Amino acid sequence: MTEQQLFEKIKTKKSLLCVGLDPDLDKMPKHLLEMEDPIFEFNKAIIDATLPFAIAYKPNTAFYESLGVYGWQALKKTIDYLPKDVFTIADAKRGDIGNTSNKYASAFFKEMDFDAITVSPYMGEDSVKPFLNHKGKWVILLASTSNAGSLNFQELTLADSKQKLYERVIEVSAQWGSEQNMMYVIGATRTKTLSNIREVLPNHFLLIPGIGAQGGDLNLVCKTALNHRGGLLINSARNIIYANDGIDFAQYAAKAAEELQQAMSQAIERYKKW
Amino acid sequence: MTEQQLFEKIKTKKSLLCVGLDPDLDKMPKHLLEMEDPIFEFNKAIIDATLPFAIAYKPNTAFYESLGVYGWQALKKTIDYLPKDVFTIADAKRGDIGNTSNKYASAFFKEMDFDAITVSPYMGEDSVKPFLNHKGKWVILLASTSNAGSLNFQELTLADSKQKLYERVIEVSAQWGSEQNMMYVIGATRTKTLSNIREVLPNHFLLIPGIGAQGGDLNLVCKTALNHRGGLLINSARNIIYANDGIDFAQYAAKAAEELQQAMSQAIERYKKW
Repeated sequence: MTEQQLFEKIKTKKSLLCVGLDPDLDKMPKHLLEMEDPIFEFNKAIIDATLPFAIAYKPNTAFYESLGVYGWQALKKTIDYLPKDVFTIADAKRGDIGNTSNKYASAFFKEMDFDAITVSPYMGEDSVKPFLNHKGKWVILLASTSNAGSLNFQELTLADSKQKLYERVIEVSAQWGSEQNMMYVIGATRTKTLSNIREVLPNHFLLIPGIGAQGGDLNLVCKTALNHRGGLLINSARNIIYANDGIDFAQYAAKAAEELQQAMSQAIERYKKW
Repeated sequence: MTEQQLFEKIKTKKSLLCVGLDPDLDKMPKHLLEMEDPIFEFNKAIIDATLPFAIAYKPNTAFYESLGVYGWQALKKTIDYLPKDVFTIADAKRGDIGNTSNKYASAFFKEMDFDAITVSPYMGEDSVKPFLNHKGKWVILLASTSNAGSLNFQELTLADSKQKLYERVIEVSAQWGSEQNMMYVIGATRTKTLSNIREVLPNHFLLIPGIGAQGGDLNLVCKTALNHRGGLLINSARNIIYANDGIDFAQYAAKAAEELQQAMSQAIERYKKW
């Protein structure tokens, strides 16, 4: 999916919503466990229910891998089921030497037809570039994440420039691609970070986790970081997919997604720059 | 496998050899492609042929994931086939927020019974610790890798301490575990790095890629970084597993592994500290 198509989706659906598809057998409705393929049945119901309100879906590979071969099958079925007109993200946080990153790119862009993959920057340029060689596909690079451990290294100040590490990651990596094939992960609680990043990267899309349960403020994020092309994908997983674990869980998921989309619609109306 | 058992293996086999199981359908012997499960047949033959000379095996998950569900099945069959008395590493370079890293730990320590997993440090403490909660299992943290892109971020100097980033990664993360459950990836070409690291971490095992084709010098690595418990796993993949692509590829792999093990045996004799 192109940047233009993504922008069109935002305007049409009045939404920035990315639904995190993180299926967990311990948390999902019990009646699904009796089915042949509970993970896929869960995802299918969640996708069908939330599709009017979401512009993107983001399965996190860890939840599938923890179930072994069966989980990997369910991931493949899920990406095959997702409609072509939503933006799909493999939240895989991969990154290895060039030749090996090529294999990961094959895994998520060819073997499975994701639009984007999340990538860790630690190994540098040759670990990221192989993903950028796939036309129409995206890298979403970890920059400033929303977890406590992000303070350990990402926030360290560098001697040569007084930049923080994540700022250097953004500055350097932005040269490897363009706003047509690179996005960045920035935690929703990092409002000052978001504000700084919009000065350096006015045009790039940002993927924002951490709204809701983790404390991020939707209106503040939109006020700070919406740009002239939308420029934001805001992820929500638990609040939507585990809104309820009864037989009618999908209706609750739809309701939670709709409420968040309506809040987004209002924030867009208030803060949009297009 | 415990640190003591690993040290015993080094002494018994006079070897530091870790064989990288990176199967690639484009590079492997053509006659295997006609078999029902070429990846597993290839790995099985390589394992059988190199077992007298190796103390560890390291499948890189990218090579399996690029083949989709079939590849994940082959990875599972490979870890099930590997003998319990070799050290097994899932070269997966994972790392995510705590709850998600827990799922990755399940994937590689429970669903598959690997001894160790490689982990990326960028997301900090809560992305690494879940792997350390599994008794008898190991984290091998990326520190100073052997690829060109390692210079982008790992070698940056920090303002507060004049340490390089990878030095801070080592200093901070060493507090999260011990030499009984943490190792570090240090590229073989980084001899000065190896020397510095042995001052900071005299007791930890290091996983060393980059010997041979990538320019690392086996003797120099052993001279610099062998410690009183062995303390080194030295990886070789291509030079061994693709030594030949004929019908008798496994014999060539055995020969390549034996030559490297014999060079290791001599280096151990010359530089051992036990």
